[in-house]
Amino acid sequence: VNPDLASERQTASFSVEKLTAWLDGGAEHTRMRRAVVEAIERDPVFSRENQYFQSQNERYEAAVRKAVYLQKKMHEMGWTENGPEFKYIYRAVSGDIAFLLHRVFMRSISVLGSDKQIAKWMPLATQYQLIGSYAQTELGHGTYLQGLETTAVFDITTQEFILNTPKISAMKWWPGDMGRSATHTVVFAQLYVHGKCYGVHPFIVQIRSLRDHSLCPGITAGDIGPKMNFEHVDNGYLMLQNVRVPRENMLNKFCEVQPDGTYVRRGSQKINYFTMTTVRISLISDEVLIPLMKACTIAIRYSAVRRQSKLKPGEQEAKILDYQTQQEKLLPQLAAAYAFHLTNNYLQELFNKGYSEIQKNNFDRLPELHALSSGFKATITQYCTAAVEICLRACGGHGYSLLSGLPSLYTKLLASCIYEGENTILLLQTARFLIKCFMAASAGQPVPPSVTYLAAVKPGKCPAKNKLDFLSPDIYTEAYQHMAFRLISSTAAKLQNLTQSEVKKHDAWNQCTVQLVQAAKAHCHYITVKNFAETVEKLETKAGIQKIMKHLCDLFALHGIFSNTGVFLHDEYISGAQMDMVTASYLDLLAVIRKDAVPLVDAFDFTDKSLNSALGSYDGQVYQRLYEWAQKSPTNKQMSPAYERYLKPLLHNTLSKL
Amino acid sequence: VNPDLASERQTASFSVEKLTAWLDGGAEHTRMRRAVVEAIERDPVFSRENQYFQSQNERYEAAVRKAVYLQKKMHEMGWTENGPEFKYIYRAVSGDIAFLLHRVFMRSISVLGSDKQIAKWMPLATQYQLIGSYAQTELGHGTYLQGLETTAVFDITTQEFILNTPKISAMKWWPGDMGRSATHTVVFAQLYVHGKCYGVHPFIVQIRSLRDHSLCPGITAGDIGPKMNFEHVDNGYLMLQNVRVPRENMLNKFCEVQPDGTYVRRGSQKINYFTMTTVRISLISDEVLIPLMKACTIAIRYSAVRRQSKLKPGEQEAKILDYQTQQEKLLPQLAAAYAFHLTNNYLQELFNKGYSEIQKNNFDRLPELHALSSGFKATITQYCTAAVEICLRACGGHGYSLLSGLPSLYTKLLASCIYEGENTILLLQTARFLIKCFMAASAGQPVPPSVTYLAAVKPGKCPAKNKLDFLSPDIYTEAYQHMAFRLISSTAAKLQNLTQSEVKKHDAWNQCTVQLVQAAKAHCHYITVKNFAETVEKLETKAGIQKIMKHLCDLFALHGIFSNTGVFLHDEYISGAQMDMVTASYLDLLAVIRKDAVPLVDAFDFTDKSLNSALGSYDGQVYQRLYEWAQKSPTNKQMSPAYERYLKPLLHNTLSKL
Repeated sequence: VNPDLASERQTASFSVEKLTAWLDGGAEHTRMRRAVVEAIERDPVFSRENQYFQSQNERYEAAVRKAVYLQKKMHEMGWTENGPEFKYIYRAVSGDIAFLLHRVFMRSISVLGSDKQIAKWMPLATQYQLIGSYAQTELGHGTYLQGLETTAVFDITTQEFILNTPKISAMKWWPGDMGRSATHTVVFAQLYVHGKCYGVHPFIVQIRSLRDHSLCPGITAGDIGPKMNFEHVDNGYLMLQNVRVPRENMLNKFCEVQPDGTYVRRGSQKINYFTMTTVRISLISDEVLIPLMKACTIAIRYSAVRRQSKLKPGEQEAKILDYQTQQEKLLPQLAAAYAFHLTNNYLQELFNKGYSEIQKNNFDRLPELHALSSGFKATITQYCTAAVEICLRACGGHGYSLLSGLPSLYTKLLASCIYEGENTILLLQTARFLIKCFMAASAGQPVPPSVTYLAAVKPGKCPAKNKLDFLSPDIYTEAYQHMAFRLISSTAAKLQNLTQSEVKKHDAWNQCTVQLVQAAKAHCHYITVKNFAETVEKLETKAGIQKIMKHLCDLFALHGIFSNTGVFLHDEYISGAQMDMVTASYLDLLAVIRKDAVPLVDAFDFTDKSLNSALGSYDGQVYQRLYEWAQKSPTNKQMSPAYERYLKPLLHNTLSKL
Repeated sequence: VNPDLASERQTASFSVEKLTAWLDGGAEHTRMRRAVVEAIERDPVFSRENQYFQSQNERYEAAVRKAVYLQKKMHEMGWTENGPEFKYIYRAVSGDIAFLLHRVFMRSISVLGSDKQIAKWMPLATQYQLIGSYAQTELGHGTYLQGLETTAVFDITTQEFILNTPKISAMKWWPGDMGRSATHTVVFAQLYVHGKCYGVHPFIVQIRSLRDHSLCPGITAGDIGPKMNFEHVDNGYLMLQNVRVPRENMLNKFCEVQPDGTYVRRGSQKINYFTMTTVRISLISDEVLIPLMKACTIAIRYSAVRRQSKLKPGEQEAKILDYQTQQEKLLPQLAAAYAFHLTNNYLQELFNKGYSEIQKNNFDRLPELHALSSGFKATITQYCTAAVEICLRACGGHGYSLLSGLPSLYTKLLASCIYEGENTILLLQTARFLIKCFMAASAGQPVPPSVTYLAAVKPGKCPAKNKLDFLSPDIYTEAYQHMAFRLISSTAAKLQNLTQSEVKKHDAWNQCTVQLVQAAKAHCHYITVKNFAETVEKLETKAGIQKIMKHLCDLFALHGIFSNTGVFLHDEYISGAQMDMVTASYLDLLAVIRKDAVPLVDAFDFTDKSLNSALGSYDGQVYQRLYEWAQKSPTNKQMSPAYERYLKPLLHNTLSKL
């Protein structure tokens, strides 16, 4: 181990192992996670060693190989898809595997399909005797599902649906596993019966032959080409030309077209709504927090090893982690990783409660769950994407090399801002909920638990008298609450003023959207701070951990104020003089947390293989590894043909002149 | 042309052609630029058609081919390296060409070499009879040049320098054109004579044979592998083991080792300083503004074509450019592109004045030029990188496809935040200058022109009474000035307090660096707003253009206040009530500028080939182009071997069960 890194570990103020166990939700989970990760990483099939050198084609092939082999491995190890090990498998393969949409295909059938449909399709899917995909998004249509243009016309004479892509913008575009792998997909299309449109419905459509994998008649499909990341996924396109599927292929748990063309709707469709909610919550942990934690690990270990310029004259060059500017870049991102980990726990718990209510057919908590899952998906993905970019830049040139691992973490996170609901649209959905609740609260009506603060208007001012007061969770949580309340109430007032001054409702809404987005973010920020502070308070017994978590909570909260001073200063809730105290406390905290920075990332407990970074390994041998890895690059495998073709003719008669 | 895009052009409030000419600095420049671009783009050698599908090896080979062919082309066309056409060539090839470091190699020799050295090396370099590079950065050492570890020991017996890489962190790392192309390079190494170290000096070293391009004895070199962008550049590594070069190979215009080992320094080394300044200024236009302008063009044209959700019930889906949130994402970036274009003109002019002074041996303006070039390099690259990322995200999923052109613009700009001086370090250099000037101004001493405002303390409050007042350049320029002054003066005060309370000078500096960076940014922001406002005022005669530029200037200024409300509210220079006026004016402006958004990007006058974007073409045929381009992807060229190997065995017995 690089001595510069080793020295960082000797002075940890807490037990790294205990913190890891706490993050995992108990030591037994840590043991299980490590066992799964070890089993996967020991197996050369799952190696990601050459990942940064591979072409899109090679990445795809490796992902398919891993997906197929994983079935065998799971059988060998006695792991099941519903078992407790499963979530650790995904972490162990770093998501770098094919057939993730096959799982969505299965979920669609199990949620939207009738018992008969489930009985027919699920065994085939479970045993990978077909490969499924999920064809919703179109070239010209994303989040706004009502705008989808693919059609499914019921042909009563043959008892079939005829599916068509009426124009280019209606082409399915982006579905994963569809470009090259899938044999079947669930196509979302506008249902027409007797010329009447019944809106968007899901249809199981076979797209490739099970005999030779050729495209089925009427099907045009392929890969949409290169992207910033997800080279291992064959995101695809699909055009349908008079493709006929039997009446039984419309997923019909909630609605059905009967043989005579009668359209029947049954039960509540709200459950679909809930599926989206679960996806948004589950992606936070797997697709967003893990990459952020990895980025923090890489950047902070590197910053403890990299020396640059002199901090004190006459001494050796300083670790870049000792510079205040470097601390100010990295440590708030570390605090955010912990903060959002706890937010994720909070959302999971909320979700579990909601789910058990739903199973009792009580849908009351659905609007709140939807609003929170939308708002947090948006704020956390956005925050974490920016955080990983900061980590990348903080490593200078080496961060820009793919070998650092940071570029692929960044480009992966960037996608999360767009998929499963574009962030701005999601935040506006949260805002709509907040405005509604604010109006209800103002009218004295009851509101869901997470927004009860909207009922309690407290004008007042921040009572802090010195910089230490700002290390009190009550002080800063109150400030966040006040700020969120102010942004929500002032936007509600603007909206009301506009509609009362004869601006049409939809125009008024559009004219408030920039501020509505701000309000929704403020709400989520407040909940995150509050939840962090409350969790820390409950940590009483684990002294070493509570202390460092309290520091991180303070840092997260004060960083948020320091970076958004305006919203707190606006109505003078915090005065300019108090803001100077915030700044002082915030900068002081950086120096405190810096001492534990390396142990705090060690606690995330990533193996070197899972980090796959020349900068971030546990031993901190950065330069040696960069050099070794660079030599493996295909650019070093041979003399370039460019020499023979272009350079040699250019240089051929130089020798005589030198 | 897509009718949704055509309609945007019919209502332009100004002459696009006149605005283009103004941007180019006159209609004659526009004509010349178009002629160069046309000649290059007509030539298939320079095609970038398949760029997004190429491997790093293919990109490199294409870049070398283009570089070699360009020599022929220039000869044919009668263009020269010093001719007026040259800058348009770089624009026309979008920087996607090899041997850019060869030019730096030549510049080093012409600036740092003696007349004799110039006479020997320049003719060979000019005719590409050798290929040069510039080996400064080391694996463990970047911006801090004094820390370089490569050694050059003078051997008096053979009259040679012996160059060595004493440890792995001393390996040269990142130099462009060095990984595979260069035959020669300028190595920066610590000079030792008779055991005494004289600091870093430049040496010409041959690294590859001119006969067969094999590595010279004692040389280890290769490519550093994959990066986020610049796949066409062979950024390389270099290790030296007892490599001997003759005494004459140390570039010796300013210092020389005489045959007896006497070290002689002559003339001023300040000119080196100036070389860095010119590089930082020149990259702003070529490497930063052009990509931002392209990103704005792509995102705004796409937003006029893409329709999503309904703005008004019952109508067709709305252009996404009609949503306030989309306007708030894109239009400030458009305003920034214009703002920084003018800042660049301002810097060029300042630089030209400085250069003519330097030619008269007057170095007085050098500190100001250095501070401004550092600060603006940092602020503009940072701002524009964020801006391009916003453009990318604003295009949703399609922005994430490489075919949109936005990912490569983003990753290119991201590099500019790191190379030629890491931004945080540069901002601290600007801050050091500002603090020095502030102290001088406080003591009544004269200060350089750009910082004279530091001498004029005006406490006061913002006099704006209503939202229209904030459309007055005097009002907002004054606000920016006040804010910059406050951040500089308060940080200077903190620094002074710390040093007076016995904190050591270097510790005190480190404890203020977060705030010093803020102060430096504020200064650059203020100068940008001031320069924009002053330029618009001078535009009197060109009415249509002045009007729209005034709107953009207002938008840029108010966006800056809206996005950084805290620094204006802090001392109540702007009150909360006034900030609401800023917000109102700012949001109003979005709707005004939205009307001219497409003509404003048309004025940048990019050809479709130079945009190389499926989303941004002049005709707005987005979906058709995405589909056509995707079909060219290598992922669609063949049945993947993954089918035969993995899928077929999996699927082989499904048929019987369906």
